[in-house]
Amino acid sequence: MDSPWDELTLAFSRTSMFPFFDIAHYLVSLMALKRQPGAAAVAWKNPVSSWFTAMLHCFGGGILSCILLAEPPLRFLANHTNILLASSIWYIIFFCPYDLVSQGYSFLPVQLLAAGMKEVTRTWKIVGGITHANSYYKNGWLVMIVIGWARGAGGTIVTNFEQLIKGYWKPESEEEWLKMTYASKVTLLGSVIFTFQHTKHLAISKHNLMFLYTIFLVTTKITMMITETSTVTLAPFEDTLSRMLFGWQQQFSSFEKKSETKPSSNGTGSSASKPVADASDNVKKKHTKKTE
Amino acid sequence: MDSPWDELTLAFSRTSMFPFFDIAHYLVSLMALKRQPGAAAVAWKNPVSSWFTAMLHCFGGGILSCILLAEPPLRFLANHTNILLASSIWYIIFFCPYDLVSQGYSFLPVQLLAAGMKEVTRTWKIVGGITHANSYYKNGWLVMIVIGWARGAGGTIVTNFEQLIKGYWKPESEEEWLKMTYASKVTLLGSVIFTFQHTKHLAISKHNLMFLYTIFLVTTKITMMITETSTVTLAPFEDTLSRMLFGWQQQFSSFEKKSETKPSSNGTGSSASKPVADASDNVKKKHTKKTE
Amino acid sequence: MDSPWDELTLAFSRTSMFPFFDIAHYLVSLMALKRQPGAAAVAWKNPVSSWFTAMLHCFGGGILSCILLAEPPLRFLANHTNILLASSIWYIIFFCPYDLVSQGYSFLPVQLLAAGMKEVTRTWKIVGGITHANSYYKNGWLVMIVIGWARGAGGTIVTNFEQLIKGYWKPESEEEWLKMTYASKVTLLGSVIFTFQHTKHLAISKHNLMFLYTIFLVTTKITMMITETSTVTLAPFEDTLSRMLFGWQQQFSSFEKKSETKPSSNGTGSSASKPVADASDNVKKKHTKKTE
Repeated sequence: MDSPWDELTLAFSRTSMFPFFDIAHYLVSLMALKRQPGAAAVAWKNPVSSWFTAMLHCFGGGILSCILLAEPPLRFLANHTNILLASSIWYIIFFCPYDLVSQGYSFLPVQLLAAGMKEVTRTWKIVGGITHANSYYKNGWLVMIVIGWARGAGGTIVTNFEQLIKGYWKPESEEEWLKMTYASKVTLLGSVIFTFQHTKHLAISKHNLMFLYTIFLVTTKITMMITETSTVTLAPFEDTLSRMLFGWQQQFSSFEKKSETKPSSNGTGSSASKPVADASDNVKKKHTKKTE
Repeated sequence: MDSPWDELTLAFSRTSMFPFFDIAHYLVSLMALKRQPGAAAVAWKNPVSSWFTAMLHCFGGGILSCILLAEPPLRFLANHTNILLASSIWYIIFFCPYDLVSQGYSFLPVQLLAAGMKEVTRTWKIVGGITHANSYYKNGWLVMIVIGWARGAGGTIVTNFEQLIKGYWKPESEEEWLKMTYASKVTLLGSVIFTFQHTKHLAISKHNLMFLYTIFLVTTKITMMITETSTVTLAPFEDTLSRMLFGWQQQFSSFEKKSETKPSSNGTGSSASKPVADASDNVKKKHTKKTE
Repeated sequence: MDSPWDELTLAFSRTSMFPFFDIAHYLVSLMALKRQPGAAAVAWKNPVSSWFTAMLHCFGGGILSCILLAEPPLRFLANHTNILLASSIWYIIFFCPYDLVSQGYSFLPVQLLAAGMKEVTRTWKIVGGITHANSYYKNGWLVMIVIGWARGAGGTIVTNFEQLIKGYWKPESEEEWLKMTYASKVTLLGSVIFTFQHTKHLAISKHNLMFLYTIFLVTTKITMMITETSTVTLAPFEDTLSRMLFGWQQQFSSFEKKSETKPSSNGTGSSASKPVADASDNVKKKHTKKTE
């Protein structure tokens, strides 16, 4: 049937990302790149290297999913229109006199609009990745989840890896692994949901799910940006899940594990500094153990 | 003909790895992972990251050989049965109350049994890798050797690389390259032997070779575990080989090379600390050279 | 028509690289490897690892282009003749008594001849890479440029990456990215030119272009080796280009960007130490920002 709701969601799920949403995605990614200390200096000193970094920031998720599926990581270079778009935005952002773009981007409404549109592209990437992975592995639902996750949130991994090679050694990059960012958590959740929908385990049509998930993404992102909180929404959900899966051992677990039990019990997301501290402690321990 | 010996080896070479030997392999790999400092804390703080690390430890060799042959590194995720098996073992090992598994694993007989069965899987992996590589490159015997080696002993390389990305920076990881572990040495030897057998340069049937090589692997591994020595068996073999190939120059070689000649003359394996010390010296030298 | 000039260039463009030019390429690459501190010691201590490093130095560009096109990185191992050639040269260079090869190589004419022949192989690699990439992506000229570049000058990236994994951590490796070496600059230029020729945007026959570009490469390389300058020829070209593309903003750019503007205005290549210093400053800045 064609209720107005179905018509709306169907029309929404058919909107093309190309001109405007991609621009928003490139704009947000490249502004985040420019915020990195030294990025502007690199752009002035060696534009070629800066351009490569910009491309990695714009197309990192696609590159990672290509690597994971053994496809040419350079495929994104064959899409000349998007490359031209991203390159021109990179050029404008980094070499515009008086930093006009940064000036304009510093207004909150612009940031909200761009971030919201970027979140929309995330849904499309997840769905595209799952469909793509399904063309390789029929009912390989684990592969579908990972590919959808990689294409949706793999950019950070690629850029961290690139900075590791470049020599900007930052041990904070392990935080990306030890404690997933809110974006990667939400993308993983969406990838799981869309995979279940794709394998017909969820009785909901794809365009409805895309609409609802996008609404969820945009609203949470904008609320997070307005109420400058890093990660709020998933903490209770994580708590229940971690309690359900790993919590019941905590009564039995020996006292020496109690210390690690605390952070996971009061929310994986809400304690950012502690895990890193622990990890560095562990690294220290290891090094001392190795050296002695 | 079907002598009892042939029947035995044939039956042995047809045993399936799936339920029990794979379990032993996962058990040994994951216990080694849990022994790493900080691994248990990571499992409590971020189960997803710990699960990925566990999968890398269980399927690292296959992933590496997939990468080297440009196949999807995620293929191992399509084999749901093994993933489920490894995941459940990971769950039991890391989240079992009172650490019952670690308690039971701490008994020497259990460790010996598990380690012996893990060595059996090594033979199967080498043979599988060589057959797989041969399907790509007819008489590309170098590729066959490398793929057999990668699938048999590539797990350590993958896990070292993963720790490097994660930010656990440990310069000891170069030891894995500078001085190969006993496992990688023995796997390389087996890969060479099985490749020669596969290219009909060795007049021995494959099931006999598999039986003998497995016996050799298991016995050496168990003797090494009982007589807690790290590497014994190959030292004389290496000596003769290194003398044969590189030794004859040592009479002529100039005095400044004499210093490096010493360790290789008394066994590559038997001097673990010296190479690292030298290497770090070299690194220091390089850095000073670069800076001045 | 067949003017003598055309005959000459056609005959030149048909010369096979195999026996002699490849030998020169392996010789130059492996001598550069031996010059690295600690390389000789590694060769004596662990020949297998040293052999792998040597292969990476000899075939790095091909490996990188294979990875970028999702082809088996091990394909170069299937070409047994070149492997045998490179291995024997590696053996002679590293294990020849009295270092006879290094002695002979220390004469300037020998170095000039070998370096000149190595530059000839660079042209062949670029053309081969572009033709290969074109077989994948019709009129994907960006991919063609990158593949030609990777095959021509990707060896340094592969070897840097290998040293990074091995644990020889050298922050100078970022210089390879921040400030491209002269070789990579010239290879990028050639890759662009040959791609335009291949897409019929340059009205010059391929064999003429190959001849002229090779002459340019060899002459600049030899002049650079004689007048021990690191990079001279491209500085003015880069200046004009960077002025044309990014220079016009420098009048408008705010005073705080003036500081970064200076180095790019007086030649990207001619200030080697400054970028690194800046970068390390930036890294420091980042770390302080992160920690506070």
